[in-house]
Amino acid sequence: MTDPVVVVGGDAAGLSAASKLAREDPDRAVIVFERGAWVSYAHCGIPYYVKGEVDRLDDLLSLTPDEVDDRGIDLRRNHEVVAVDTDAGSVRVEGPDGAFDRPYGDLVVATGARARSDPVSGSDLDGAFTVHGLDSAATIRAALTPPAAFAVEDLGGEDFVDREAAEHYGAMDPPETAAIVGGGYVGVEMAEALSAWDLDVHLFQRSSLPLAPFGDAVGEAVADHLADRDVTLHLGESVRRLLGDGGRVSGLVCDDGTTLDVGLAVVGVGVAPNVEVLADTPVELGDSGAVAVDEYGETSVPGVYAAGDCAEDRHVVTGAPAWVPLGLTANRAGRAIGATLAGTPTEVGRIAGTAVVKAFDQECGRAGIVDPERARREGFDPVAETVTAGSRSGYYPGNAETTVTLVADRDSGRLLGGSIVGTDRAAIRIDTVATALEAGLTVGEVERLDLAYAPPFSPVWDPVLVAAKVLGGSLDG
Amino acid sequence: MTDPVVVVGGDAAGLSAASKLAREDPDRAVIVFERGAWVSYAHCGIPYYVKGEVDRLDDLLSLTPDEVDDRGIDLRRNHEVVAVDTDAGSVRVEGPDGAFDRPYGDLVVATGARARSDPVSGSDLDGAFTVHGLDSAATIRAALTPPAAFAVEDLGGEDFVDREAAEHYGAMDPPETAAIVGGGYVGVEMAEALSAWDLDVHLFQRSSLPLAPFGDAVGEAVADHLADRDVTLHLGESVRRLLGDGGRVSGLVCDDGTTLDVGLAVVGVGVAPNVEVLADTPVELGDSGAVAVDEYGETSVPGVYAAGDCAEDRHVVTGAPAWVPLGLTANRAGRAIGATLAGTPTEVGRIAGTAVVKAFDQECGRAGIVDPERARREGFDPVAETVTAGSRSGYYPGNAETTVTLVADRDSGRLLGGSIVGTDRAAIRIDTVATALEAGLTVGEVERLDLAYAPPFSPVWDPVLVAAKVLGGSLDG
Repeated sequence: MTDPVVVVGGDAAGLSAASKLAREDPDRAVIVFERGAWVSYAHCGIPYYVKGEVDRLDDLLSLTPDEVDDRGIDLRRNHEVVAVDTDAGSVRVEGPDGAFDRPYGDLVVATGARARSDPVSGSDLDGAFTVHGLDSAATIRAALTPPAAFAVEDLGGEDFVDREAAEHYGAMDPPETAAIVGGGYVGVEMAEALSAWDLDVHLFQRSSLPLAPFGDAVGEAVADHLADRDVTLHLGESVRRLLGDGGRVSGLVCDDGTTLDVGLAVVGVGVAPNVEVLADTPVELGDSGAVAVDEYGETSVPGVYAAGDCAEDRHVVTGAPAWVPLGLTANRAGRAIGATLAGTPTEVGRIAGTAVVKAFDQECGRAGIVDPERARREGFDPVAETVTAGSRSGYYPGNAETTVTLVADRDSGRLLGGSIVGTDRAAIRIDTVATALEAGLTVGEVERLDLAYAPPFSPVWDPVLVAAKVLGGSLDG
Repeated sequence: MTDPVVVVGGDAAGLSAASKLAREDPDRAVIVFERGAWVSYAHCGIPYYVKGEVDRLDDLLSLTPDEVDDRGIDLRRNHEVVAVDTDAGSVRVEGPDGAFDRPYGDLVVATGARARSDPVSGSDLDGAFTVHGLDSAATIRAALTPPAAFAVEDLGGEDFVDREAAEHYGAMDPPETAAIVGGGYVGVEMAEALSAWDLDVHLFQRSSLPLAPFGDAVGEAVADHLADRDVTLHLGESVRRLLGDGGRVSGLVCDDGTTLDVGLAVVGVGVAPNVEVLADTPVELGDSGAVAVDEYGETSVPGVYAAGDCAEDRHVVTGAPAWVPLGLTANRAGRAIGATLAGTPTEVGRIAGTAVVKAFDQECGRAGIVDPERARREGFDPVAETVTAGSRSGYYPGNAETTVTLVADRDSGRLLGGSIVGTDRAAIRIDTVATALEAGLTVGEVERLDLAYAPPFSPVWDPVLVAAKVLGGSLDG
């Protein structure tokens, strides 16, 4: 009998692979080892849980452990795979009842990524948090809740939550001032979340604008909007370390000597792929540090696959490997690997780096290559144009300014990427750009897309079309 | 000296052509003959003006006559081109000061389309309206306004409005019951508009569902929603004629003998292209009855172009001519012809028949070939799937059911068309389908699109991706 498929990690990619395999080939055994207590949770929902728009922690679960079992998957929570032996075809597992080796037929590495905190010393202080995993979500909300109003049951997810940590924070007085270190999408979303709790929110961003991957036009709009919403922006400021008082965070110091007293700090300075478990194997990593894979998600070692935040994907514009750890592509790659393992070779698909983020009322989107410097590094001669156009017919109520940047290659006219920002259904329009990128359309072809028009939804010329017209003019000129 | 470019019709296509030409080649003279008083108005905004969401008639003007003049265009309003002589290269014009012939160098026919009322006798009664042109908009709103509250100045656009007709209706008591004949997008939009005026609204649709070009899933959702909003639906009922009393509409009779007393009737049973001016010319019409054109918008007679609602376009799925009179493609074709006449040959672009419509809170979209019967006639072997999925993450406030239908060709896997309906940003998502159609993507390629995901905007799997996954499964099966 074939050894089972072993999946390392019980979140989006891992459980997508296991679920697809179990559905398509019920006879093939599949074991999922998850080192934590939680499985299949919506990481992207954490800011809205902290904000209080999402009531309970278990609202963020896509699947309960019982539902995973019902799919015919052997799920082992609190089991950590600590080593892989690709020669022997087995994994070393540490679980509640000790360590053991488990042979595998095929292996799916879906270990995810972790929030980095290393560039900021003091991140281990009480009251300093990264945003990763539901336990951090629970403790941040506990820290924001006044002790008199706190009950661990109100957090939701009592079967899984780290009760001790939650109660520790629930007993503390909430902070009056919070600092967010890092103006990426986690930082921006957390600025909105913390602002809902009636405290002073400060956002520190090393570069001159937040949301760097979204480009300057989005960054400027979001910076203005955050300021309008009383978030104090510290742009161009690098937080060097968090200061403690009795083990609890009490302030911070920037590289330029700026200090601020804070009672809570959220560190969102990026993520790193969890690849340590492969350290002693011949499985190759890519330049990004994430696992290199082929178009089926298979690593350099046959029978060993990787998917999700720990793995690279192929970029739709460059055709080269890229590491963009996001939710859809994790689910998609896992599902494709599950299908492949069930006997139907299925490509994991390419990525456009499509991302959308809400900053209070501003909706932001980006796809492809937005940064002209990066475009040049990839061998393109980028031309970019930014336009501001209406989201609806000018006379229709709710029409709002929508700013679109499109970037194209001068020689070929090919669309390379784009971004969008606005308050009225702006983010979802990035799907037009993402689809055009996947299809390799030129700006001229984008300009002639037959997109939706009706006064309540879009002007005659959708903002993306307006940008394409202007960019087309620049390319011709 | 070259004879001027003569444009027949001063709306979307005609003024787009004239504006682009005037900008790109200021030395070339361009004359626009418009038979009416209004130019460059937003036909699609009329229901929202009737509803009262748009305050003034002149809010619907994209350009005033003065702005057209400022572009270097010789605009002659109230001048009707009554005949074209392509051998002589001249048009016969009837204006306020009599008739005259005007030689042209190139001719752009942009005569638009008109609302049909011929299938319903009695459409000429007082209180029976088609929805076409701003004068009809003004008279419908006048008819709905109680005489005590009516003032012709409140309609807006006093420089252009047919004052006599407006005052005639403004003096009448408003109706208690209104009938809409035809459940296309005009009918559905007018149902919303009339319902805002506190009267009983009845919608008659010959076939079994409204919005036939959007397919059954959209039609069913809209039928349910209209009923929820107290619009009385008469599905499968053909209105044979309107009944009059003293010259004013008083009721209607259906083919099956059903009668209804009504004080106002809106007839929206389709549109017909205005091609009569070409009757004695060799300019060829297509099977649709609209003017046949090549990819540059040129007709069978060199130097004679046609664009907008009077002309055919090339369909992106079939590659064959199709007549889908809508706003974006009229603007786009006009603009392309203007560029071509200025010396830069520019394709008018293909159409996907993309359309979106608002029915109260339901947003509907369609693109490509949705009807399986039509797909078969075009030589495809259609497979269709309909799914209902969330518009946002399930735990995020505002998540709403979104129903997507996708249609593909079994042999090639190519996407043929799709539709969408839902209350939360549903319509704009049809742009993903329209873009995929333009690019000729297969369902498998759509399934692997890297579309936007963030809890406030979209679930991990966008509803379009969910539909593609299910349809992909059916194609494989």
